[in-house]
Amino acid sequence: MEVGICKQDMLQKKKNAVLVDGVILNGPIMDSKAGEKFVEEACKIIMEEVIQKANDVTEKVCEWRAPETLKKILDLEMRDTGESHQKLLQLCQDVIQYSVKTSHPRFFNQLYAGIDYYSLVARFITEALNPSVYTYEVSPVFLLVEETVIKKMIEFIGWEEGDGIFNPGGSVSNMYAMNLARYKFCPEIKEKGLSSLPRLVLFTSEECHYSMKKAASFLGIGTENVYFIKTDERGKMIPEELEKQVQRARKEGSAPFLVCATAGTTVLGAFDPLDEIADICEKHGLWLHVDASWGGSALISRKHCRLLHGIHRADSVAWNPHKMLLAGIQCCALLVKDNSGLLKKCYSAKAAYLFQQDKFYDVSYDTGDKSIQCSRRPDAFKFWLMWKALGTTGLEERVNRALALARYLVEEIKKREGFQLLLEPEYANVCFWYIPPSLRKMEDGPEFWQKLHEILQFSASQAFGLCSARSESHDEAVQF
Amino acid sequence: MEVGICKQDMLQKKKNAVLVDGVILNGPIMDSKAGEKFVEEACKIIMEEVIQKANDVTEKVCEWRAPETLKKILDLEMRDTGESHQKLLQLCQDVIQYSVKTSHPRFFNQLYAGIDYYSLVARFITEALNPSVYTYEVSPVFLLVEETVIKKMIEFIGWEEGDGIFNPGGSVSNMYAMNLARYKFCPEIKEKGLSSLPRLVLFTSEECHYSMKKAASFLGIGTENVYFIKTDERGKMIPEELEKQVQRARKEGSAPFLVCATAGTTVLGAFDPLDEIADICEKHGLWLHVDASWGGSALISRKHCRLLHGIHRADSVAWNPHKMLLAGIQCCALLVKDNSGLLKKCYSAKAAYLFQQDKFYDVSYDTGDKSIQCSRRPDAFKFWLMWKALGTTGLEERVNRALALARYLVEEIKKREGFQLLLEPEYANVCFWYIPPSLRKMEDGPEFWQKLHEILQFSASQAFGLCSARSESHDEAVQF
Ligand SMILES: Cc1ncc(COP(=O)(O)O)c(C=O)c1O
Ligand SMILES: Cc1ncc(COP(=O)(O)O)c(C=O)c1O
Repeated sequence: MEVGICKQDMLQKKKNAVLVDGVILNGPIMDSKAGEKFVEEACKIIMEEVIQKANDVTEKVCEWRAPETLKKILDLEMRDTGESHQKLLQLCQDVIQYSVKTSHPRFFNQLYAGIDYYSLVARFITEALNPSVYTYEVSPVFLLVEETVIKKMIEFIGWEEGDGIFNPGGSVSNMYAMNLARYKFCPEIKEKGLSSLPRLVLFTSEECHYSMKKAASFLGIGTENVYFIKTDERGKMIPEELEKQVQRARKEGSAPFLVCATAGTTVLGAFDPLDEIADICEKHGLWLHVDASWGGSALISRKHCRLLHGIHRADSVAWNPHKMLLAGIQCCALLVKDNSGLLKKCYSAKAAYLFQQDKFYDVSYDTGDKSIQCSRRPDAFKFWLMWKALGTTGLEERVNRALALARYLVEEIKKREGFQLLLEPEYANVCFWYIPPSLRKMEDGPEFWQKLHEILQFSASQAFGLCSARSESHDEAVQF
Repeated sequence: MEVGICKQDMLQKKKNAVLVDGVILNGPIMDSKAGEKFVEEACKIIMEEVIQKANDVTEKVCEWRAPETLKKILDLEMRDTGESHQKLLQLCQDVIQYSVKTSHPRFFNQLYAGIDYYSLVARFITEALNPSVYTYEVSPVFLLVEETVIKKMIEFIGWEEGDGIFNPGGSVSNMYAMNLARYKFCPEIKEKGLSSLPRLVLFTSEECHYSMKKAASFLGIGTENVYFIKTDERGKMIPEELEKQVQRARKEGSAPFLVCATAGTTVLGAFDPLDEIADICEKHGLWLHVDASWGGSALISRKHCRLLHGIHRADSVAWNPHKMLLAGIQCCALLVKDNSGLLKKCYSAKAAYLFQQDKFYDVSYDTGDKSIQCSRRPDAFKFWLMWKALGTTGLEERVNRALALARYLVEEIKKREGFQLLLEPEYANVCFWYIPPSLRKMEDGPEFWQKLHEILQFSASQAFGLCSARSESHDEAVQF
């Protein structure tokens, strides 16, 4: 046989077949031509049904069905024999039809902001290549890209140097930081665990993301040892309250080790006063972690980066480009100011089968041992390609636009009867009440709120019903 | 204005522009036609350069470059202004060229096994839709799919019922299990943490995956409290040794709570004797977790499922369809026998902004609070579409084929001079030495191994050099 022999030739030469345990080893595994054709046809559907309709306000956000109904519509059952390509393509159509179009201009749920073509292409590339970023030999390009992106993010934070790792999200990043702060506080915990130690205590605001509680319980610290600090009327942590709680913890004989400030809270979009919090951390020798999962993107904007004033004093930062910057779920980095190898020391398990120290290249590029994962997706790459495409200026415009839209919405709310603004937003979150005409004259009190709640619940279900009807709005939806 | 107004019309009507903070709010965010064209052109490159070449043995596995050289070739720097589409497409080409083709028939690194067109299409769909599976209202289809897939996996484990959650990988699944076992052992740990408790101890084999150590340190248990149980000459945990260690731990006054058996170890592919281990767990009231990240796929094969005999007695199982079954990184489920809501009780944080209890549909479909993540990828979907396409029989053939190939390789090794089989494999891992002619007559001893190691290191670097040359092999490579 010669080089480049094609599949048809192989089939004709079946007499050379190597049969082991009933399997013909040297036959083609599947018909790759048919497989490629299937991919091509599916891509056409994706192009037409998702991508081309992504920004189209006249399309539906979602063809809503209740769980039991949707189960009947979709043929979910997996069977012994496979389905035809035709049936599979129909299934793909159905999946798309009944899924929420999260990039739709009228999709207002949870920190989404539309579609980005560049990060999407990057994601298609990595799905096709299916890499895992543990070692340079398996992921040369993606490890270099991750290093570059992390350096750039560190620059925007304002550190001279640092370290970092992309991981499955803001929640996991907060866990990384908590464990790292604990390791810095007492490196022995890695080997000995927490059992004989005093009670470790960490501080975060009442308005923090719920991942703080999840992290504290997962890491064996316990949710009761998260001391929630009071916030002011705008949702910002009150530094004096933090000081008090640190002192209380010390008096109790527990071991304070970490303050988690939030830059951009999930519901109100509030930014904790980082500079004043950093003063307290310095005074008490506490690690300062900033959860900038949502607010970190403001660092890109010269107009809005002052929201995170003082962030350069943090020891670690979680920053989620998959939220406002549209890098696609999942894309999040934990960034660390320390550049002396703390991250690696804290996380390494030194697996000999993967991280040999005597390879023929510089093994400092084998960053996988900084991670809690083994297989790891190249999430930095989609942020990188998007950044290359738009430039820093383009990303900046994206942030400025989101905040300008929020500002516009606030002005509209103020002008319109029946709308009540909850508070002047700092960021892209706009919190307001809609008071229906029947309640506008009612006195504020428990009965009023009960009624309002009932009506809003009802409208939510109505709204989902409406999703199925074509939108007839007269101008482009405000995206935030 | 009317419904369906197109972008060009919008531009002409710029006099209606709404300007806030220097941003025109009602203009198009970007030229979506150009964006779509970019996606189309990039898809063509992906199709030609990755997918069509995926199975082609005459193509290169990787165009290897050392880190410093590759940095010079790729234009990694992100700048203030963006790049042209033409430049970006060239970048995409370069990224592909210098990346490892993990689906190549001659790519033998780390638990990969080729390309699957169906899971790939599923991944393209979810990247385009960019969902997050926390609540039914945001991910109706993907939550139902996850439920179906988990049910099916549970069936193959042999449980009557159960629960589960897809998460970023086998390492994270092992962490989930460890935390869950701990919660079952002492639910108070969730709130109180570990500080005032006796030392928790868990048991796993010497041949276990390194994620066990990572999990123990991350969860505050401490790596020293992982008791590594001796294995036999085939790499299997020795039950008598486990029994001894559990007794030792009890004598020390520590608190044994968990045994992590491995079904398919990373290096040797060994299966721990689950039935005997389950007996010991029952006797001592210990949680049995089976790390079947790698070996779980054998459950699909009627011929090979006996490797996991006794797995139905486990309390939890980690199973990674992104390894042998080719579902694409990341795709892994933690499966739990308990069906009384243990998973939810252990992990929930009850965030009010996301998991309201008075929605207008059955909120038991809002499974996000079982997770340590907030945003979560719909990883079950790619496994589902692949399963729909191939049927159980097709998946079974994939497993049977992998094991038949391993068997074939073993026979070839035995026949050829200079090759030394380390042990008869149970699974797809084949461990052997190649002894170069110069060493074949040398006596076994430290000097021999030192020399052999040096030569193999050198050959590894040579092999990477060779990757860049066209392969001239005479038959299809053996994939495993
Ligand atoms: C402030 C904040 N931190 C953390 C997170 C969690 O990020 P992820 O969803 O990537 O886990 C969120 C998500 O909404 C958030 O708003
Ligand atoms: C036995 C075993 N467990 C766990 C893992 C980790 O899986 P993941 O890479 O998905 O974290 C591996 C990976 O190689 C493994 O072989």
